[in-house]
Amino acid sequence: MLCHATERSRLALTCATDHFLETSCTYGCKVTHNEDFGQVAFTIEAQPESPIQLSKYMVYYTSRIACAEELCGRAEWTMDRVMHQGFQQLLTSQEQYMNDFWRRSDVRVKDVREDRTNRTTVEIQQAIRFNLFHILQASARAEDTGVPAKGLTGQAYEGHYFWDTEIYLLPFLTYTSPRIAKNLLTFRYKMLPQARARARELGHRGAMFPWRTVSGEEASAYYAAGTAQYHINADIMYALRKYVQATGDELFLRDCGAEMLVETARLWLDLGFYSDAKRGKFCINSVTGPDEYNTVVNNNAYTNLMARENLRYAAQTVEALRTNDPDAYNSLAHKTALDPSEVKAWIHATESMYVPYHEKLKIIPQDDSFLDREPWDFQNTPREHYPLLLFYHPLNIYRKRVIKQADVILAMFLLGHEFSTDAKKRNFEFYDPLTTGDSSLSSCVEAIIAAQIGDTEKAIRYGMAALLMDLADVGGNVKDGCHIASMGGTWMMLTYGLGGMRDDDGILAFWPRRAPEDNAILRFPVTHCGRMLEVEIGLETVEYALRDGEHLTIRHETEELHLSRENPVAVRPVSRT
Amino acid sequence: MLCHATERSRLALTCATDHFLETSCTYGCKVTHNEDFGQVAFTIEAQPESPIQLSKYMVYYTSRIACAEELCGRAEWTMDRVMHQGFQQLLTSQEQYMNDFWRRSDVRVKDVREDRTNRTTVEIQQAIRFNLFHILQASARAEDTGVPAKGLTGQAYEGHYFWDTEIYLLPFLTYTSPRIAKNLLTFRYKMLPQARARARELGHRGAMFPWRTVSGEEASAYYAAGTAQYHINADIMYALRKYVQATGDELFLRDCGAEMLVETARLWLDLGFYSDAKRGKFCINSVTGPDEYNTVVNNNAYTNLMARENLRYAAQTVEALRTNDPDAYNSLAHKTALDPSEVKAWIHATESMYVPYHEKLKIIPQDDSFLDREPWDFQNTPREHYPLLLFYHPLNIYRKRVIKQADVILAMFLLGHEFSTDAKKRNFEFYDPLTTGDSSLSSCVEAIIAAQIGDTEKAIRYGMAALLMDLADVGGNVKDGCHIASMGGTWMMLTYGLGGMRDDDGILAFWPRRAPEDNAILRFPVTHCGRMLEVEIGLETVEYALRDGEHLTIRHETEELHLSRENPVAVRPVSRT
Repeated sequence: MLCHATERSRLALTCATDHFLETSCTYGCKVTHNEDFGQVAFTIEAQPESPIQLSKYMVYYTSRIACAEELCGRAEWTMDRVMHQGFQQLLTSQEQYMNDFWRRSDVRVKDVREDRTNRTTVEIQQAIRFNLFHILQASARAEDTGVPAKGLTGQAYEGHYFWDTEIYLLPFLTYTSPRIAKNLLTFRYKMLPQARARARELGHRGAMFPWRTVSGEEASAYYAAGTAQYHINADIMYALRKYVQATGDELFLRDCGAEMLVETARLWLDLGFYSDAKRGKFCINSVTGPDEYNTVVNNNAYTNLMARENLRYAAQTVEALRTNDPDAYNSLAHKTALDPSEVKAWIHATESMYVPYHEKLKIIPQDDSFLDREPWDFQNTPREHYPLLLFYHPLNIYRKRVIKQADVILAMFLLGHEFSTDAKKRNFEFYDPLTTGDSSLSSCVEAIIAAQIGDTEKAIRYGMAALLMDLADVGGNVKDGCHIASMGGTWMMLTYGLGGMRDDDGILAFWPRRAPEDNAILRFPVTHCGRMLEVEIGLETVEYALRDGEHLTIRHETEELHLSRENPVAVRPVSRT
Repeated sequence: MLCHATERSRLALTCATDHFLETSCTYGCKVTHNEDFGQVAFTIEAQPESPIQLSKYMVYYTSRIACAEELCGRAEWTMDRVMHQGFQQLLTSQEQYMNDFWRRSDVRVKDVREDRTNRTTVEIQQAIRFNLFHILQASARAEDTGVPAKGLTGQAYEGHYFWDTEIYLLPFLTYTSPRIAKNLLTFRYKMLPQARARARELGHRGAMFPWRTVSGEEASAYYAAGTAQYHINADIMYALRKYVQATGDELFLRDCGAEMLVETARLWLDLGFYSDAKRGKFCINSVTGPDEYNTVVNNNAYTNLMARENLRYAAQTVEALRTNDPDAYNSLAHKTALDPSEVKAWIHATESMYVPYHEKLKIIPQDDSFLDREPWDFQNTPREHYPLLLFYHPLNIYRKRVIKQADVILAMFLLGHEFSTDAKKRNFEFYDPLTTGDSSLSSCVEAIIAAQIGDTEKAIRYGMAALLMDLADVGGNVKDGCHIASMGGTWMMLTYGLGGMRDDDGILAFWPRRAPEDNAILRFPVTHCGRMLEVEIGLETVEYALRDGEHLTIRHETEELHLSRENPVAVRPVSRT
């Protein structure tokens, strides 16, 4: 058993190892160890035909679970238990766990021409499962921790947690493993004290969640593509709303969510201002949006749109508590020293939020100066000079009209109900040629919007890039670890994109579309408020089947469907694009 | 003798010490030393009435002057010479040197009520000389080096050289010690190879002078208030033009200046672009101007104005060479691979340069988004929270409408002929309340513009702040060293500000103004093309006297005055404000 701790933050880890040797051969065993090293050497007089079976058991404990002094004791007790139970029982419980996971989570594609070996579909199925499995690995034990950018697969980003947990991973977890989604949101709630302190440090009211962190403290050294990404506040609150809508977990909203909403809404109100130059609109200046190739800008559209949603949800939640649960409201007001006038101010900012719009191009400019930038010379940028950030000085990139990753387009996915298909089409066609996709967070989102606007060719191209990001090493950097967020993005692409899933108002809706050449059947489960729905999009019809639970109301396009134990299945025709 | 070198760049310094003891008392001497340490201890049997005189000589040599191996030999030879000559001769030559310096440089103020002890005027005189003396200390031996921000008085800024050498110090040196001015410009010329390499590194054509440097390489770690300050290129070329105009040193322009002009003009042309969003005007995006509280902005007015001057002077110089000195032109074209079309492109950019202007406020906005910023809450900023950069996160400062130091106002001083007094007044009145003066480079410039627009109260207030910056520790940080640039600024304030000096077109002009309550006589020498002029601004009249040289043409306001050996003095009435 070895126990190590990091030097400054004293995060401790204990690893215990034990062995069980089964053999009829004569053997000896020698154990040596020092402070940093442990070794067990078996010397076995092996005989022909005489089997030797060595079972190796390992137990890990971290200081997240118990105080450092107890770690070794705990590891010892656990080791005793599993050695006593034996490998078979471990294996069985793991099988149960995995079966349960796949039942809740597996997205299946099957080519209708079943008799032929359709290699592509088999590979796609493997890639989907590869992605979902790695999300499981990265998130299953996220208890009082976040999900590192590379999961457990690599050391890039130093194991830090970013906004992509909330925007790219939580949708999958919310709809397949809501318990883990709740763990992750609780982890954010627990870092509220540090987020409050960080806001003070930057001269703000409210709370400011860290751009990158392990323990809740801001760990980003470079503000332009770090601390300036205030949008993380709104991203977490967005994930909170989706979680509450999908699970009905009003208790979590009351006990944890509301407090985060108050503090994040405060931050936005403090950060922005009513600008004379913008005719009294509420503006947010000097922030960086998701696109890290345009930093420290004024009125990043994504940030303003998401901040508006944050402010709106905060006001709505606080008002609902005040009306429906005065005790909870009083407790919240006490904890946050909330003044009723604040809620009015949030509503006013919501209503006055400035969202850039270009009358002539009929698009949403990514920020105030985006259209002022010099066009990037894509034609003379050699293929091997991507990702640009590795080959050009940041000043050179920031100066030009070039995009690392979906920004306005991401807002149009997340807040899809606020935009017409036409608007999505115009913006997609404007931004797509400017988007390098140098971030792995881009393709899955572009694929979804492409699917929504009926650009099948791009939906497939970006979708495959997202799906194969790590298996085919699309970014050329899988040696640094898997892109866990992009993996979550592939699930979104399959469900929201190809499956046409929408969840804007708390009722699950589906607008499945099918391209003429597309012969694959898509099937996926969705957990909603404790019920499990299975959706199968066939060639001509879509089937909605209630698997767990008494009843569930969903929508097929605009039609409301009521599934129940008595009538668990509904079938509707699929539109062709 | 000790010789040390820096670890990485191998800059070496030798210091030799020797002693000469004169006494009739008995004495012994013990010398000890090791690698890092040397000691000479005299033991003297001192007797009453018997004098003991110890003279200590020190010699310094650096690897800038000789190669490291020779340093000790050189120091020894020099030590032998001075020991042989003795202290008296050193003293005499130093006195000559200082007398010569004061004759060329001293700015004198004298209260007309000579019979009374006017303490203020005496103190002001002391402060002026304190400032000029420190500039001498910092610059006298600038041979193949620059002038560090703190001169030889402190270690802040790590001895690095910045733009303030060219903009704040070179005017004084150009008009009093042109040889040193030339040294400093030659030093810039010699770092042209590194400046070319740095431009490549940032993806630019031409040359990019380092924001901070010792050896010519960029030493700034933080681009926002460092590398992004592209204006240093134009600042150096501005100082070059002033130097050539004031000295007539066309040889330097031909042999060194022209090459720098070509490379800097190239950089501007590459950095900027013709912007559709700005109706085809030439725009320069993502740069930081002199004001470090508004970083990485589009169309910083100072930068665009100074870049325009840079491009204009480059085109003019190259065209003049082509017409008047084909050999020199060919050599230049060869050295820089100059294509004649480039000059046309510079002229086009000059003519198309975008300079922001706000029709309603009738001011030049400092940059494209300056007027979009949220006003800084000056009222609730406690006195002890200045300088802001020590108390607020940069993002918080950059987001607000608050200025560290004169920016548009500095351009209006440097390019004074491009702006009417009305324009200066409007801009000064707009920017002055927004300017914290958190940089020591601000007050002297604000004082000059205040003097030019007749705001005597502010001219005096800012002028005194600049003058007493170090003696009265106005900035509270003189412990880190003197503000050499501000010291140069005080000379500009006295000559350009109070003396009304103008040098826009190569002819010295004076527009002296006198406030009603002002009873001090101001007298200062100016060296121009090898002649020395002395200007004395009395209560009613101004006297221009040619001290050295055959003849000199100057202007008093719009009147041309021809001074000669026969008629060396002209007297004109002084206008009262």
